[in-house]
Amino acid sequence: MTMAKRDTYTPESLLAVAVAVFNERGYDGTSMEHLSKAAGISKSSIYHHVRSKEELLRRAISRALDGLFAVLDEPGATTGPAVERLEHVTRRTVEVLIAELPYVTLLLRVRGNTDTERWAMERRREFDHRVAALLKEAAADGDLRADVDVRLATRLLFGMINSVVEWYRPQRGNAATSEEVADAVINTAFAGLRAH
Amino acid sequence: MTMAKRDTYTPESLLAVAVAVFNERGYDGTSMEHLSKAAGISKSSIYHHVRSKEELLRRAISRALDGLFAVLDEPGATTGPAVERLEHVTRRTVEVLIAELPYVTLLLRVRGNTDTERWAMERRREFDHRVAALLKEAAADGDLRADVDVRLATRLLFGMINSVVEWYRPQRGNAATSEEVADAVINTAFAGLRAH
Repeated sequence: MTMAKRDTYTPESLLAVAVAVFNERGYDGTSMEHLSKAAGISKSSIYHHVRSKEELLRRAISRALDGLFAVLDEPGATTGPAVERLEHVTRRTVEVLIAELPYVTLLLRVRGNTDTERWAMERRREFDHRVAALLKEAAADGDLRADVDVRLATRLLFGMINSVVEWYRPQRGNAATSEEVADAVINTAFAGLRAH
Repeated sequence: MTMAKRDTYTPESLLAVAVAVFNERGYDGTSMEHLSKAAGISKSSIYHHVRSKEELLRRAISRALDGLFAVLDEPGATTGPAVERLEHVTRRTVEVLIAELPYVTLLLRVRGNTDTERWAMERRREFDHRVAALLKEAAADGDLRADVDVRLATRLLFGMINSVVEWYRPQRGNAATSEEVADAVINTAFAGLRAH
């Protein structure tokens, strides 16, 4: 057993450690023992901060969801033509995803075994529906191509956006900036790759 | 213990059972005991068909990779302008992904803990590089928008294509056909969602 270090964690810094472990081992595969080892403090010290592993999950997921839902209330998401609000939401979703990478990664990986996970999935669906509604409105305005199937387009747009958590590694020297990735997503999804 | 049923499995039908269990529990989380229960035959019956769990993984992943790499040898992928070959490969990749859904799902989820998984990841990278080379060629021909970053575009294209395994459920009554999904991917990625 390693010597436990002094507990100087804040709720935020302990959460960051927990999220890293959840993402590496999976939430189900993580025990309080694993968290205690990764944080270098005893289990009872962890229980001083939180009541349970699930509370850590709930806090981490709330952070991701708060970031994403805040985008929907920004002026760019609430005023102007639907297609521009849609582009704004797409751009800002990519930026939040990169700013909160480990938290959004965790959110996208939960599978619904606990109340917290089911709540997370429900809120994700709500977010997707809000974006789908924008797509539908933009299509009704005639600003999307006539042959766009709104349901499939929503899936593919999120497929593209969410894939960022699978490959974006900010620590790589040649990593694109958050803005460059957002530009690439906007350009690909809305303008298409083909020269016109 | 449930009564073992008579072993009437072919290599293919046993593989289908194993892949379903791998996708549900994760490859690491699956034991020969789990496979024996799911198949309803004894472990020694399974060992009559294959030497190990890893052999089942190798066969399943080979099936996915063979389907994907075959696309690169099709006439549509070897003749004509690069941008059309790229569109052909994109369309056919989506179709193979849907036709071989559980096998490609497994391929996309492996994380590299065994030799077979590392080999799978290496072959996936090789496939991605072949597609990236087509993108590069199409960009050099002036058939992609000038501001397309080939590396990011390849990531986003595969993000969109690979997301299909996360949401496509053929058993749903209202599921789009493989052709409709392929059309939606092609239209979104190459033409873009915006009306021009």
